[in-house]
Amino acid sequence: MTNMTNTIILAPNAFKGSLRAVQAAEAMARGLADSGLRRELDLMPVADGGDGTLDVLLAGGGRRVTCTADDPLGRPRDSEFGLLDDGRTAVVEMARASGLALLTRDERDPMRASTYGTGQLMIKAAELGARTIIVGVGGSATVDGGAGCLQAMGVRLLDAEGRDLPPGAAGLARLASIDLQGLHPILRDVRIRVACDVDNPVLGERGSARVFAPQKGATPEQVPQLEANLGHFFTLATGMGRDVRDLAGAGAAGALAGGLTALAGASLESGSDLVLNQIGADERIARACLVVTAEGRLDSQSLGGKGPVGVLRRAAAHNVPVVALAGEVLGSDALFTQAGFRAVASICDGPTSLEDAMRRTAEAVECGARRLGLLMRLGADVLAGSRN
Amino acid sequence: MTNMTNTIILAPNAFKGSLRAVQAAEAMARGLADSGLRRELDLMPVADGGDGTLDVLLAGGGRRVTCTADDPLGRPRDSEFGLLDDGRTAVVEMARASGLALLTRDERDPMRASTYGTGQLMIKAAELGARTIIVGVGGSATVDGGAGCLQAMGVRLLDAEGRDLPPGAAGLARLASIDLQGLHPILRDVRIRVACDVDNPVLGERGSARVFAPQKGATPEQVPQLEANLGHFFTLATGMGRDVRDLAGAGAAGALAGGLTALAGASLESGSDLVLNQIGADERIARACLVVTAEGRLDSQSLGGKGPVGVLRRAAAHNVPVVALAGEVLGSDALFTQAGFRAVASICDGPTSLEDAMRRTAEAVECGARRLGLLMRLGADVLAGSRN
Repeated sequence: MTNMTNTIILAPNAFKGSLRAVQAAEAMARGLADSGLRRELDLMPVADGGDGTLDVLLAGGGRRVTCTADDPLGRPRDSEFGLLDDGRTAVVEMARASGLALLTRDERDPMRASTYGTGQLMIKAAELGARTIIVGVGGSATVDGGAGCLQAMGVRLLDAEGRDLPPGAAGLARLASIDLQGLHPILRDVRIRVACDVDNPVLGERGSARVFAPQKGATPEQVPQLEANLGHFFTLATGMGRDVRDLAGAGAAGALAGGLTALAGASLESGSDLVLNQIGADERIARACLVVTAEGRLDSQSLGGKGPVGVLRRAAAHNVPVVALAGEVLGSDALFTQAGFRAVASICDGPTSLEDAMRRTAEAVECGARRLGLLMRLGADVLAGSRN
Repeated sequence: MTNMTNTIILAPNAFKGSLRAVQAAEAMARGLADSGLRRELDLMPVADGGDGTLDVLLAGGGRRVTCTADDPLGRPRDSEFGLLDDGRTAVVEMARASGLALLTRDERDPMRASTYGTGQLMIKAAELGARTIIVGVGGSATVDGGAGCLQAMGVRLLDAEGRDLPPGAAGLARLASIDLQGLHPILRDVRIRVACDVDNPVLGERGSARVFAPQKGATPEQVPQLEANLGHFFTLATGMGRDVRDLAGAGAAGALAGGLTALAGASLESGSDLVLNQIGADERIARACLVVTAEGRLDSQSLGGKGPVGVLRRAAAHNVPVVALAGEVLGSDALFTQAGFRAVASICDGPTSLEDAMRRTAEAVECGARRLGLLMRLGADVLAGSRN
């Protein structure tokens, strides 16, 4: 599979908890350049709609807009979203306003936590001219079905006495009617694209409440309440909009994905595909001789369609080889080569603890890329029968 | 300059405590073959005179001779040595008769432990026709200066009353005279080559007693006794033979190296050089396009002349590139590439404990070699037709 183009694409995911995708790509570039591999490097960090999506999309050009938005408990805080170079597309990471990382462990309270701040960011993005808003989900502190976000957007959630519900999942139990007339006019012709790569539904065994609420601080007693409240909310929502109760992925971000899809006409899309399309992955890969991807952990789940495999599929379509670097490789290499990777390699230097490894991820990624370059050069020399 | 040969040499050291060099070479061969790298593989496991030296030298052809020899405490046990194909060269690993591994932790007793069994193996080797005996040192349970070995060879160590000393280091305090006349006739024209890669002297801060005796079970009180007894023994030995008291390496294996050099005309040689010469490393490397070495741990000490660097030096003389696989790489890669390695790579798959890693060393070595092959092939494909 020889390709005479000179460009190597560096397309890492974030190393969750230790290195952002953009930083990983920069570390890989340092390592490969240091290896003496004389190739143009195209830094193309990727994301799946979760943490890092904003960075990755802004890497293609655009600006950060800083503003104030309510945190999950309604406290105004500095936040931000992205406005891409076209001036018409905004990127809102729900976690920047409604994320679990914004709360202390003691503050975690999925009964009260609201996505209101995410809605505020979306309004501000629209006010700045965005006609498409990409909503990155993941890392949420909420299980409110996106109710708070919709309220911020002007949707009224009313109790039996016609009073607006307070923010948070608890109030949904008293939801009697939904009024879409109040939807902020500026959002009427805004296209909302939810970028998400989990396939959990809103309800049930694999739903937002049962699977994700506990890690957001829900007690065993609260989980069924959250499940019931979400069920009630989406049953009423079905009367007003789209029935998303069986939609894969609608459970993402405490069912924010479902709420926006049911009542705000949002489309639910594969985060990695959306990101790859947005950054022009196909065009860039078509011009490349090699793609190097990377991920914190490469395992059988990695083959489920996220990150590296998303890149792999695009590269396969152009017959461009892909090699994956990983902080940890779990499972037989045959699993990955059969999936289409030309090779996988760990960046780990030897027996170590996960904590120590995560402390020096950037250094290890750079070193792993340098070794990759040196071994590829060695192969070119030795297998071509020439030595220098 | 170009080299069209097709042979890749696999020259691993033992992975101490988890994989013998011969097994490591076999695992590397499986992995490289599995990678689809179409090259002839020349398995050339190496050793430095310590554990595994016998296997490595027999890999070139020869047979194991099983026999009985006294263990460090004088108990007859099954042991073995090697007789190489020439029928004139024997390989005796002192640890097979006088090794720490033959004792339980409670049995460790450097005051009593004797190298007598090693001498028995040497006699048997000579009786089978060996005219050169390579003595691999390392892993000894003894600090007797080789006194027991010499006694087994017929040398008489006498006290003031002309009585033979009992085996073990303790008795050396009463040594009054040494009688070389009793040396077994068959040994008179046998060349003894001690293969050793430590440079510790017999005495002093870095001597056998102070550095090695504690790990052989010596109490803090016994260390100075052992030091004194060795000093006494080698002072008397100097009168009878060669003064080795300042000879680097004479302290190896509880100063067995020194005893054989002082009183049996042994030559003290670099174990890795001796092994590399014995297995015809230069001729084999000269015909190769690549050397892949491997070691459990690659660190700054590895650059001190042992194992991988011994191979590296030979390869450098023939301008053959060398890549090193390691269970653990400690220190910056620049350290190793500056030393001459084309690349180094860890076979570690991710954060893990040393224990877990050592449990699956063979598998990891095979996997590491497979990845090496895949990355080299990738390099040949992607970088083909260009200078790098």
